[in-house]
Amino acid sequence: MNLESKLKAAIRDIHDYPKPGIIFKDIVPVLADPFLVDEILTSQVSYWKNKPIDAVAGIEARGFIFGSLLAHALQLPFILVRKKGKLPYKTLEQEYSLEYGTAALEMHVDAVQPGWNVLIHDDLLATGGTATATGVLVEKLGGTIAGFSFLVNLGFLPGALNLKNRFKQDPFYLVEY
Amino acid sequence: MNLESKLKAAIRDIHDYPKPGIIFKDIVPVLADPFLVDEILTSQVSYWKNKPIDAVAGIEARGFIFGSLLAHALQLPFILVRKKGKLPYKTLEQEYSLEYGTAALEMHVDAVQPGWNVLIHDDLLATGGTATATGVLVEKLGGTIAGFSFLVNLGFLPGALNLKNRFKQDPFYLVEY
Repeated sequence: MNLESKLKAAIRDIHDYPKPGIIFKDIVPVLADPFLVDEILTSQVSYWKNKPIDAVAGIEARGFIFGSLLAHALQLPFILVRKKGKLPYKTLEQEYSLEYGTAALEMHVDAVQPGWNVLIHDDLLATGGTATATGVLVEKLGGTIAGFSFLVNLGFLPGALNLKNRFKQDPFYLVEY
Repeated sequence: MNLESKLKAAIRDIHDYPKPGIIFKDIVPVLADPFLVDEILTSQVSYWKNKPIDAVAGIEARGFIFGSLLAHALQLPFILVRKKGKLPYKTLEQEYSLEYGTAALEMHVDAVQPGWNVLIHDDLLATGGTATATGVLVEKLGGTIAGFSFLVNLGFLPGALNLKNRFKQDPFYLVEY
């Protein structure tokens, strides 16, 4: 089996989560298979390793998993992007839309050195709201966007299109539904 | 400088966070130094690599960072321990005490295979409330405790003593305050 098939076999469908009518893609079983984790990491590293990247940013909380693995494998700084109120030092905040209302992500004000080209990672791309907010934070802190890296893209939602329109970047992902 | 000195130089004191009188130990600057991250990981791996361990559990959210790095380096399954309501599949829940009231951690009911010896990781050991709750969850799911691994121990709090009393394990950590 190729990596895409292995990933699809490992990802678990959770029906009616977080609410009725939604089929949630649960990546937790992927993490139970260290050989699959290594193959996912190798695939991401081979895509990104020769591109100019100064740091990897991971979005709380599942984005911390492959985000930190990717940063370590590329020997780059790892930047935490967290929900509002979770980072202890001075932060910059960016709101994003939820179905009803808004939420906010934060980064430490010293997380990005001026001119850094930052790769943004999360496990799953849906509408791209949190990835866009992260990209905006990186730019406000003086960085540029090296790209976006996901495990899963929900292709029936406009996340990839939204990121391309806003940041002129086609996101990288390993499987699409 | 040895690893302990480097870590202490990188960890940032945040005064009066999360509330007046507390000095919070911020490990975020550690993650900005990929050589230090690698040295921390190497130190943890050399301590744990010859011990019998079947999986590594990381406690949300900062425990996902070195938890996933450690699981990958040891080529072991990585288990997520999350705050209540964050895991999508069927879960087992364990309460722990906060200064005022209680909170709860959860693990998926299929996260631990019967008989697995599980290493529990978090970034910082304070009173040991979340680590103890995680250990209890692992035992309830049919596993045993391989040990506890932290970056930082707050030695003026009884976390290490509490873990030793409850699980007969001396926690491993790299620096102590």
